[in-house]
Amino acid sequence: MRGGSFALLLALAMPAHAERARDLGIPFEGTPGKLNAITDVPGVEVGQVTLVSGEGPLVVGKGPVRSGVTAIFPRGRADGRPVYGGHFDLNGNGEMTGIAYMQDFGVIYGPIGISNTNAIGQVYAGIQQWSQRRFGHAGFPVVAETWDGWLNDIEGFHITSETAIAALEAAKGGPVAEGAVGGGTGMQCFGFKGGIGTASRRVKIADKNYTVGVLVQCNTGDRAVLRIAGVPVGREIGQRWIPCYDPRLAPADKQPRCSGEARAGHMPGDRGSIIIIVGTDAPLMPVQLGRVAKRAAMGLARLGSYSGNGSGDLIAAFSTAAAEPNHPDQAAPTPIAPVPSAAIDGLFEATVEATEEAIVNALTAARTMTGADGYRLFALPHDELRAIMKRYGRLEGPAR
Amino acid sequence: MRGGSFALLLALAMPAHAERARDLGIPFEGTPGKLNAITDVPGVEVGQVTLVSGEGPLVVGKGPVRSGVTAIFPRGRADGRPVYGGHFDLNGNGEMTGIAYMQDFGVIYGPIGISNTNAIGQVYAGIQQWSQRRFGHAGFPVVAETWDGWLNDIEGFHITSETAIAALEAAKGGPVAEGAVGGGTGMQCFGFKGGIGTASRRVKIADKNYTVGVLVQCNTGDRAVLRIAGVPVGREIGQRWIPCYDPRLAPADKQPRCSGEARAGHMPGDRGSIIIIVGTDAPLMPVQLGRVAKRAAMGLARLGSYSGNGSGDLIAAFSTAAAEPNHPDQAAPTPIAPVPSAAIDGLFEATVEATEEAIVNALTAARTMTGADGYRLFALPHDELRAIMKRYGRLEGPAR
Amino acid sequence: MRGGSFALLLALAMPAHAERARDLGIPFEGTPGKLNAITDVPGVEVGQVTLVSGEGPLVVGKGPVRSGVTAIFPRGRADGRPVYGGHFDLNGNGEMTGIAYMQDFGVIYGPIGISNTNAIGQVYAGIQQWSQRRFGHAGFPVVAETWDGWLNDIEGFHITSETAIAALEAAKGGPVAEGAVGGGTGMQCFGFKGGIGTASRRVKIADKNYTVGVLVQCNTGDRAVLRIAGVPVGREIGQRWIPCYDPRLAPADKQPRCSGEARAGHMPGDRGSIIIIVGTDAPLMPVQLGRVAKRAAMGLARLGSYSGNGSGDLIAAFSTAAAEPNHPDQAAPTPIAPVPSAAIDGLFEATVEATEEAIVNALTAARTMTGADGYRLFALPHDELRAIMKRYGRLEGPAR
Amino acid sequence: MRGGSFALLLALAMPAHAERARDLGIPFEGTPGKLNAITDVPGVEVGQVTLVSGEGPLVVGKGPVRSGVTAIFPRGRADGRPVYGGHFDLNGNGEMTGIAYMQDFGVIYGPIGISNTNAIGQVYAGIQQWSQRRFGHAGFPVVAETWDGWLNDIEGFHITSETAIAALEAAKGGPVAEGAVGGGTGMQCFGFKGGIGTASRRVKIADKNYTVGVLVQCNTGDRAVLRIAGVPVGREIGQRWIPCYDPRLAPADKQPRCSGEARAGHMPGDRGSIIIIVGTDAPLMPVQLGRVAKRAAMGLARLGSYSGNGSGDLIAAFSTAAAEPNHPDQAAPTPIAPVPSAAIDGLFEATVEATEEAIVNALTAARTMTGADGYRLFALPHDELRAIMKRYGRLEGPAR
Repeated sequence: MRGGSFALLLALAMPAHAERARDLGIPFEGTPGKLNAITDVPGVEVGQVTLVSGEGPLVVGKGPVRSGVTAIFPRGRADGRPVYGGHFDLNGNGEMTGIAYMQDFGVIYGPIGISNTNAIGQVYAGIQQWSQRRFGHAGFPVVAETWDGWLNDIEGFHITSETAIAALEAAKGGPVAEGAVGGGTGMQCFGFKGGIGTASRRVKIADKNYTVGVLVQCNTGDRAVLRIAGVPVGREIGQRWIPCYDPRLAPADKQPRCSGEARAGHMPGDRGSIIIIVGTDAPLMPVQLGRVAKRAAMGLARLGSYSGNGSGDLIAAFSTAAAEPNHPDQAAPTPIAPVPSAAIDGLFEATVEATEEAIVNALTAARTMTGADGYRLFALPHDELRAIMKRYGRLEGPAR
Repeated sequence: MRGGSFALLLALAMPAHAERARDLGIPFEGTPGKLNAITDVPGVEVGQVTLVSGEGPLVVGKGPVRSGVTAIFPRGRADGRPVYGGHFDLNGNGEMTGIAYMQDFGVIYGPIGISNTNAIGQVYAGIQQWSQRRFGHAGFPVVAETWDGWLNDIEGFHITSETAIAALEAAKGGPVAEGAVGGGTGMQCFGFKGGIGTASRRVKIADKNYTVGVLVQCNTGDRAVLRIAGVPVGREIGQRWIPCYDPRLAPADKQPRCSGEARAGHMPGDRGSIIIIVGTDAPLMPVQLGRVAKRAAMGLARLGSYSGNGSGDLIAAFSTAAAEPNHPDQAAPTPIAPVPSAAIDGLFEATVEATEEAIVNALTAARTMTGADGYRLFALPHDELRAIMKRYGRLEGPAR
Repeated sequence: MRGGSFALLLALAMPAHAERARDLGIPFEGTPGKLNAITDVPGVEVGQVTLVSGEGPLVVGKGPVRSGVTAIFPRGRADGRPVYGGHFDLNGNGEMTGIAYMQDFGVIYGPIGISNTNAIGQVYAGIQQWSQRRFGHAGFPVVAETWDGWLNDIEGFHITSETAIAALEAAKGGPVAEGAVGGGTGMQCFGFKGGIGTASRRVKIADKNYTVGVLVQCNTGDRAVLRIAGVPVGREIGQRWIPCYDPRLAPADKQPRCSGEARAGHMPGDRGSIIIIVGTDAPLMPVQLGRVAKRAAMGLARLGSYSGNGSGDLIAAFSTAAAEPNHPDQAAPTPIAPVPSAAIDGLFEATVEATEEAIVNALTAARTMTGADGYRLFALPHDELRAIMKRYGRLEGPAR
Repeated sequence: MRGGSFALLLALAMPAHAERARDLGIPFEGTPGKLNAITDVPGVEVGQVTLVSGEGPLVVGKGPVRSGVTAIFPRGRADGRPVYGGHFDLNGNGEMTGIAYMQDFGVIYGPIGISNTNAIGQVYAGIQQWSQRRFGHAGFPVVAETWDGWLNDIEGFHITSETAIAALEAAKGGPVAEGAVGGGTGMQCFGFKGGIGTASRRVKIADKNYTVGVLVQCNTGDRAVLRIAGVPVGREIGQRWIPCYDPRLAPADKQPRCSGEARAGHMPGDRGSIIIIVGTDAPLMPVQLGRVAKRAAMGLARLGSYSGNGSGDLIAAFSTAAAEPNHPDQAAPTPIAPVPSAAIDGLFEATVEATEEAIVNALTAARTMTGADGYRLFALPHDELRAIMKRYGRLEGPAR
């Protein structure tokens, strides 16, 4: 399949507001930025490549392929300077590279790449090659992953360094496609089709306006505990719409099987993972960005998650306010007047809120997808969601 | 005031089920232990000393006093052996001693003490003195704090090592008093009267039954974001019942002032702190207990918290299954067959759930209290709470 | 004994250069400051209280007492503002408070206190009381300890909050007394009499001059591995001058016994602990101070240490360049233009060198001391040391 | 050059004792295992691939190539089960993958790969591909790097996933080639030719014999501070034998230039990095392995290192005693009776000693190498080294 003729679909800018959670009437706190996306943070650019090809039985190395790469540039594609960064490891059943550099230097060095578990190496290689050519240094990029092996032939290693470079080249500001795109293409979120989601919040600190933006690749979550805006949506939907295999395509041991109408079965617990990237233009020191990263975990917790053992829940946060003074060529450091700790609460609250909304956006944006062995991941049904929210007095906003 | 005649009230076993959250119909997930308390974990003992004396204007060193100490023995008062432990620093605006020992040895060495911020030293001293006499070694106890200076003359340093020792001596199994008792006496939780809360969950792993118990000292939380069982209770109650100063007693700059009927005003953001102690009899290695500790932060997040800058949110977790083999006298280690990581999810979920419930218990158990300068912290009004929960379709359980 | 009539000796400014390592011809790298002490860092003040009273058999609560407190003010006694700080836990068999605050805020909040293991609580209490009175906030002080129970009646808890306050009040700039003074009074270092040691280095970064100062309380070390300036001094001295008990005073099971001339016996391995405090006036962010703290561990390693299990080896580092902007009253943060990482090596090297020299200074400054049960800790014999250094071609400096 | 005809040299088992430090009379403490190599730890296998091709001017993508891959299997190539592991980040100017998994699970999952900075991605990809095929899961391998861009066309990205797989396939027990082999091929250590070095120690704990083995890839170190067995070798050799460029091949700005006899010049400070892998068959919990990892940093410190800013000094440690019970298929955990902390000192001391010796072995084993632009890295001259050691009374062992 590698080198074959499958379609490399550069994600088009989808009508970004069509299927977003707040358009469905889900209530959230706080004031989003213009796009309600991580790209509301000035300078942030996102590039995504989506690989969707083949259908039918899984043949390792052949497909079907449901995967991709999402790339994030904290200061845009043209700026190779590192930024201050911090991280938080909520549950380390996953990979995030660049941790030592974040830990000791408080710096994210290069674009960030997110893809599937078996693509870490190729995405790392692609980013280093591209950065070396562009900026003369390869850096220690932050590359993270979640596992898409339900829908995708992950053992076929279809993501290459070229896929990663294409994602880097596609980076731009503006609306960010959500759902089954980029690194999120094959992902499963609380037992529904998931993937990429984003959101942002405006924060005013001492008369200055800042933005906090979050992008998630959601592949985590136990259906049974899913809360949306506090409502026990997972319990209400229960075992309906659970993922299933096409009985005509999948080996007999792959359960449950899809039937004509029954979509009931036993939904497994918390599997998969979530990667959360937080960006802001507020000037923050590394130690403060580590604190911001911890708040993203609290946003995930609002969804009811207990961060299951199988879930690699890893978070990185960056501030675009200062370019890091580490590079040897730079004679002088960029001075930084960090947000005083006593004024940081707005950024914390924004991070929690934007993370919560970004995850719900990943759920509402994604559409039902069928992949390897006819495995089908259903989209969270919007009408049911709205009906449940209404029943619990939590439906807001304009009727559709 | 120190050495004076104020009452040292050994906390009596209150009717522990009278004002607990689930008795009010608040819904929670999971199956609690018999007492729904940390003492459901076999061997765990809790001792509390409550200091309430004086009223009227604050006179530093004189009072009024609204404070105390809560002590927790992982393996009971008679067992001086350390246990495996882990910790998590969600927001380090506070003190928890014993961190280096937890970090490097994975061990909690001695009883745990919780009190007010300015009592750290005296509680530490008291535990060491007591442990030295009892067990021949002073240990490196875990002592943690939250700030009760609204209600209490905290600058008067009324807690002494003797207060701490009295708490140790009072330790016992059975029901745990909640609300304004022990270290929680003067605490404020989401702008209501808070303090001590506890809860537990039963977990079955491979045919074995374990218990996870949580005890919190809740002095944290921004009223505006308070969610209970997912319901935006804080937003609904808004600025009613906010804490206020008695205008006849307090200096003019202390705001807001209590008035005959108005209890409205501007509620400040997230201040104070929360200490969370998690115990279990499941055999866990230190690295696993650190992971459990992180889940307690997710329980706090369910309340809507963003762990504000001013809040010292510190968590320790222990397993009673193995006594630590570190002490020099011990020739051989206690072998440990830890719960396999792949089976640990039940403990994670239990920790999140029990933490959530313990915090709500701290709120529902506490009664309105008036302290220094006539500062009044109102109890979360149960009827309003029930009405709100009902409005959002989240009231469960038997009618009272 | 507490409240009794033993002598509270305020440490006099000893002739600070009399017995220092480099005066004995021990070679070190780098350029020390004027005093070769942590007080070369502008603003740093050190106060020490030394308690020496009683002799003869140990009677718990009576004595003999060989202990004390050493206090360090990063910005002097008159300045209550916190400073940026970082820490490193090389071996967590000990206590250092304030870790959560250093971890999350990158700040040391209050004066630093060092004493014996069982004095943690009282020193913490004393610092909080003093800070509350002086500055209106108690802070989360860094209090650390090492165990002096060989020479000292440590179980008698002779250090009180008043002892700590006396150390705070004694703080001043200028020469720092070394050896058996302050918190180091009863300490044992590589099987010799140890205690307090200090040293400093000058560092030039981009035409600016900075100072790195180190103060250690050395109670650690396995005699067998002791290297001084790379020379295997411990192996050369071997089992001579090992600590011993007076056979007329000590119970029979306390070994080895001092004899008329034999001072040979079996020296135990690495016990005790070391606390290392690093200060600098170079502007460093918290993340950089954590890195500096790790270099102090490398200085210890030069002595041959393997940081034994029984040794609590804990390090804190601070920068006096910026007052921390955290306190609520402070509207605006202090801007910080940190040393660029690419220029930080001089500070790292200075930290390693000054730590190495401070430990040797603790050894050379201390004099033979006899304490509880007639336990005698011999000073590292200067003549033997010089002879060994000469034999290995490592004796430098003027002849005495 | 990629895909070209350069020689892929599978490292032959060199006469492993020919040029080792202790054969030159350098004194070390402790008792090595039979091979004095990491492979003395039962089950450990090492595979190395060395790429040496081309000479002359650097042409990016063409060469010259001086690089390779070193792979380590904790339990041998046939055993895909993860092992308990820990890590320590001494200076995070580098990449080590797998940190989140080590941090939270205390586990190293898959073979370990070490190569050059720009090969991280390809080595990661190669290990995942190989592991997926062999064991059915790709794991989260520990992949680490140091920068060989002085001798090697590192920007040409000559290491591919196939190179990594060849190193995995070459893994075996027995003697380990040292010096300019495998990942260490192009490395520079204290300004001399460096690379791979290894050593081991025997440790007896409670009548059981264990082995600690260390493997380093040494590319770090400031010549000026180099100490060998405590002797200031770097200062003695000074600026002789410093690396230089062939004036006929290198651009004029590359300094210093090699001249007929002068090898003097200005040696830069601490650049490059060091990766240290520690293995043992002693049963250790993850928290204990993290402590072991910190001791490796103390071994590096004995060489005089201050872990310069430019040096990525990263350490991982594993225990082969227990296979990790995490994998979902495994119903029951492997019970572990860890070494009691009170008996762990022998392992700490062994780690310090073996790390010190492994680094010196990397120096003594390597031979002078010339690479890109005629850059020449001189071997540490054995005769000079012996002469210096003798002058300082530190030459031991049989004359050669």
